[in-house]
Amino acid sequence: MIGPRHLRVAARAGTRALGLGQRMASAQAEGTLQWPLGSVMSLDIGGSLTKLVVRSPAGVATANDVSQGGKPWDVEQAVAAAGSGGVDGPDGFVGRILRRMPRHPGYRAELELSDGMGGALSFLQFETRWMDDFVDILADLHPFPQHPDGGELAVPATGGGAFKFAPMFREKLGFRLEPSDEMHALARGMRYFEAASAHRWAEEEAASGAPSGTGAGTAGASEVPPPLSPTGPEMFTYDLGGDRVVAWRDPAPGAPCLLVSIGSGVSIIKVGQSQPCGDVSVDRVNGCSVGGATFWGLCRLLTSYRTFDEAVQAADVGDNSKIAMLVSDIYGGEYAKLGLPGDIVASDFGKVGTRRYPRAPCVQKREDGSSLVEPAVEEADLTRALLVMVLNNIAQVAHSSAREHGIDRIFFGGSFLRRGTMMRVLTSALKFWSGGKTRAAFMRHEGYFGAMGAMLLAAHRGADKGLAALPLPGSDGWEERSE
Amino acid sequence: MIGPRHLRVAARAGTRALGLGQRMASAQAEGTLQWPLGSVMSLDIGGSLTKLVVRSPAGVATANDVSQGGKPWDVEQAVAAAGSGGVDGPDGFVGRILRRMPRHPGYRAELELSDGMGGALSFLQFETRWMDDFVDILADLHPFPQHPDGGELAVPATGGGAFKFAPMFREKLGFRLEPSDEMHALARGMRYFEAASAHRWAEEEAASGAPSGTGAGTAGASEVPPPLSPTGPEMFTYDLGGDRVVAWRDPAPGAPCLLVSIGSGVSIIKVGQSQPCGDVSVDRVNGCSVGGATFWGLCRLLTSYRTFDEAVQAADVGDNSKIAMLVSDIYGGEYAKLGLPGDIVASDFGKVGTRRYPRAPCVQKREDGSSLVEPAVEEADLTRALLVMVLNNIAQVAHSSAREHGIDRIFFGGSFLRRGTMMRVLTSALKFWSGGKTRAAFMRHEGYFGAMGAMLLAAHRGADKGLAALPLPGSDGWEERSE
Repeated sequence: MIGPRHLRVAARAGTRALGLGQRMASAQAEGTLQWPLGSVMSLDIGGSLTKLVVRSPAGVATANDVSQGGKPWDVEQAVAAAGSGGVDGPDGFVGRILRRMPRHPGYRAELELSDGMGGALSFLQFETRWMDDFVDILADLHPFPQHPDGGELAVPATGGGAFKFAPMFREKLGFRLEPSDEMHALARGMRYFEAASAHRWAEEEAASGAPSGTGAGTAGASEVPPPLSPTGPEMFTYDLGGDRVVAWRDPAPGAPCLLVSIGSGVSIIKVGQSQPCGDVSVDRVNGCSVGGATFWGLCRLLTSYRTFDEAVQAADVGDNSKIAMLVSDIYGGEYAKLGLPGDIVASDFGKVGTRRYPRAPCVQKREDGSSLVEPAVEEADLTRALLVMVLNNIAQVAHSSAREHGIDRIFFGGSFLRRGTMMRVLTSALKFWSGGKTRAAFMRHEGYFGAMGAMLLAAHRGADKGLAALPLPGSDGWEERSE
Repeated sequence: MIGPRHLRVAARAGTRALGLGQRMASAQAEGTLQWPLGSVMSLDIGGSLTKLVVRSPAGVATANDVSQGGKPWDVEQAVAAAGSGGVDGPDGFVGRILRRMPRHPGYRAELELSDGMGGALSFLQFETRWMDDFVDILADLHPFPQHPDGGELAVPATGGGAFKFAPMFREKLGFRLEPSDEMHALARGMRYFEAASAHRWAEEEAASGAPSGTGAGTAGASEVPPPLSPTGPEMFTYDLGGDRVVAWRDPAPGAPCLLVSIGSGVSIIKVGQSQPCGDVSVDRVNGCSVGGATFWGLCRLLTSYRTFDEAVQAADVGDNSKIAMLVSDIYGGEYAKLGLPGDIVASDFGKVGTRRYPRAPCVQKREDGSSLVEPAVEEADLTRALLVMVLNNIAQVAHSSAREHGIDRIFFGGSFLRRGTMMRVLTSALKFWSGGKTRAAFMRHEGYFGAMGAMLLAAHRGADKGLAALPLPGSDGWEERSE
C-alpha cells in the first residue's frame, strides 16, 4: 500500500529515478550497504544519541514528504504514514525506525535536504541505549541486504559507537561499521551544510534579482522564513539587541573557523579553509567534559522535568541570579578594575551553598534567638542556572581556543542547542569573553554534522570504486530535486 | 584571668614586647586600626568566607599558644581558653571571635606563623553571611579603638566585601575598610608563604648541616613532619605514584608562576618574578565561575551531607565512573587517535541523564514486556562526580592559561582544597592536560593569601608613615619569635 502523498511525490520525482538508481546501484556491487529501494544510511553513534542520515534516491517518498509543507515535521503523522507503507516504501527502514524505535522525550526531527542528485537526505535520531532495538529492526528487514559476492556490507559510521558497537553489528547483522574519524566527519558535515546555506542564499538572490542577506547577521531576517521553522534558513545568529534568532548569510563561507561540537561532551575543532574537493583540514584543539549530557544529567537529578524540552522551556523563565553568586553579590557592584560587570556570574550555584535546606522553605534559629527564613529553590531557577553554567563554560573554553588560534568565527554544532535561550546565553557569553570580536553562528542541522560527514567521507572513498559522490551544494554536478 | 599557658607564653616572649610595641604604636598615630594589646588585623571578604589574619605583638598569647604543640589546632580548646581570657588577652578580639562567631561546619583553623619581629600571625575565618555578628563583636570591644585625632581608623581589606561592606563598617563602627586590589593581595600573600617555606627549608638545612629536600617533589618527605599537620611543611605536591601528599622544596622560589585561586569562583593570576622589595607584578589572565561554591552548592542540592568535610570525605570513596560518561563508555576503549585514555571523563554526569528515576531504584517496562532496572544513585558517587567535574575544569582552564603564557608552575590557593583527594584530582588532571610538563603545588596557608597580602600591602604603604613593614621570611630584618 502506497499512500496518495507518496504517489504524488513518486510521480513528481519519477523522471529522475532511473538515472540515480543506476548510479547508486554500483555502490551495492562495491560493498556499501544499500537498503531496499536503494537508500543508504550513515550513523553517528554518540554517548547519548545516535544520529542517522538516510539518503533516498529519487522516486522514494521520504518521511518529510508526508508532513505538511511549512509546518513542523510531525513525527506522529510520519509514523502513521510509515504504518501504511507511505514512508520510504513498504519495506523501507526509515518507516520501520519511525514506527518501532522508542522515541526519546523531545525527539528532534530534522528536515530533509536535496542530495543534489534528485534524491533526498533525511535526518533521524534515537537514544544510543536503544541500540539493541535498532539492530533488531535492521535484522527484520525484507529483503535482507546481501553482498553480491557474499562478502561483508559496510555502513558508514562515526562517533565512539562506530568502534564500540562494531562487534554487535558484525555478529547480529553481518554488517561492517566503516568508521570515519569523528573530528573529520564533524568538520566535513558542517562544511556541507554551510555550502547548502550559501547555495540557498545565492538561489534566492538569483530568483529575486537583488542581493539577499547582508552578512551583517541581523539584516535580511525578514526576507526569509523564520529560523528554526521547517523551511527556515540553514544558518543563523542570535541578535542580542533584538533578543531574537535571525538568519545569517556568511560573508566568507569556507573560511577557517572553530567548530564547537556540543554532544554529551564537547569537542573544539579547528577547521581549515574549505578545499574545492570538499575536504578540509581538521585539528581537535580542545575539549571539555562539561557538555550536553552534564546539563541533562544534573537536570534529572535536581528537577522533576521529564523531558529535555520541558527543562529548557522552564529555563526560559528561570532566574539564575537566585542560584548563582554574581559579581555584584560579592563586590556590591561591578569589579571595575577587571572589567567585570555586576551581573556576571562569579560562582555558579554559589548562592545555594550557604543555605541549609534549599529544597523546601525552612526557618533556622540563631543562637541569639532570632530566626532566619531560608526560601525554597525553584526548579526553573535551577534549570536556568545549569544551562548558564554549562554554556558559559563552553563559551569560555571556545573563546580561549579561538584566541589561541587567531580565529573569529565559531560555529556551534551538536544535538543540544535547539532553543533561542541557549543561543542567547552562548552568544552573550562569547561577546563578553571576546569583547564582541568573535561571532557565534548556529545551524539548523547542528546535530547531524557527524553522520553527514561520515556519509560524505564514505562516498568520497567509494567514488573511486563507483559509488556516486555526493556533490557539494551549489557545486558542479549539483542538481535540485525536481518539483 | 590569664591562664597558665598564657603566662608562660607571655613570659617567654616578654623581652621583645616593648620593642615591637614601640614600633607598632606609631601605626595607631597614623590611622591604621590597632586593637587592644596592639594587635592588627586584615580581612579578605569573599563571597562565601571571610578570612582574617591577626598580627599580635610579642607578649600577647595567640590562639595557637593554647593548643597543644604538635596536635591539630583545637578550636574548642581555644574557645575555652578565650572564655577565661587566655587568648589574645581578656579584651582581645581573637578570643571574642572564637567565642562568639558562628563556626561553619568544617571550620578550618590555621596555625600561626612568626611575623619575623617577635610577634605572631594567626589565621581565622567565618562565613561572610555572619558579617553582622562580626561587626557586633567589634562594636563591643573595650576599650574601643579611637583615632588619636578623632579621624577614621583603617582596616586593611581585600576581596569583593572590602567594597560591599565598606558602608556598613563606616556606619556601625566608624572604621574605614582600606581596600587592596584582590589579585595583587593574593599574589603578594602567596609570595609571602612561599618565602616562609624557603626560609624553613634553609633553616633545616643549616641546623642539620646537610641539604634538605631536593626540589624533586617526592624526596625529602620523610625528613619533615607530615604535610597538613600543624607542624607540617608550607608547600607540598601530590605524588601520584605513591598516592600521597609530599613536602616540596621549590628549587626556584620566586620564579614566575600561575596562581589559581579557588574561592567561590576561580581567578587565574600570572605572578611575575619576586622583587627584592617583596612586590610582584600581577595580571589576572583568566577566571572561571565553576568554583568552590559551585561544588558545595550542588552538593547541598544533591546530597544530605551537612558539612563540607563530610562531603569531601565521602568523595574519597565515591566512584565517578557510575555517574560520568567515560571515553570508554562511548568508544568501548581509548580514543587512540586523540590520545584520550578510556578512563578519562568524556561527559560529567553523562550517565545519569539516561536514567529516569536515578534517586531511587526503579523498574521500567519496555514495550516488548521486558523490564529494565535502574539502580539508585549513591550520594558518595555524586559527590565524587561533582568534585571531579569542578577540579578537572579548573585544571583545564589553568593549563590553557599556563600554556598561553609559557609557564610551567601552578600554585593553587583558596579555601577549597584541604584534602588529599582534591590535590590528587587536580594533579592528575594537570598531568593529563600538560602531558606531565606542568607542576601543581599546594600551600598550607592556601586560604589566607588575600588577607595576608592585604596586610602586607597596607604595611608597605604604611611603612612610609611609620607602620613597621612586615619583613619577608628569611630577609634582612627577619627575626625568629623567641623560644
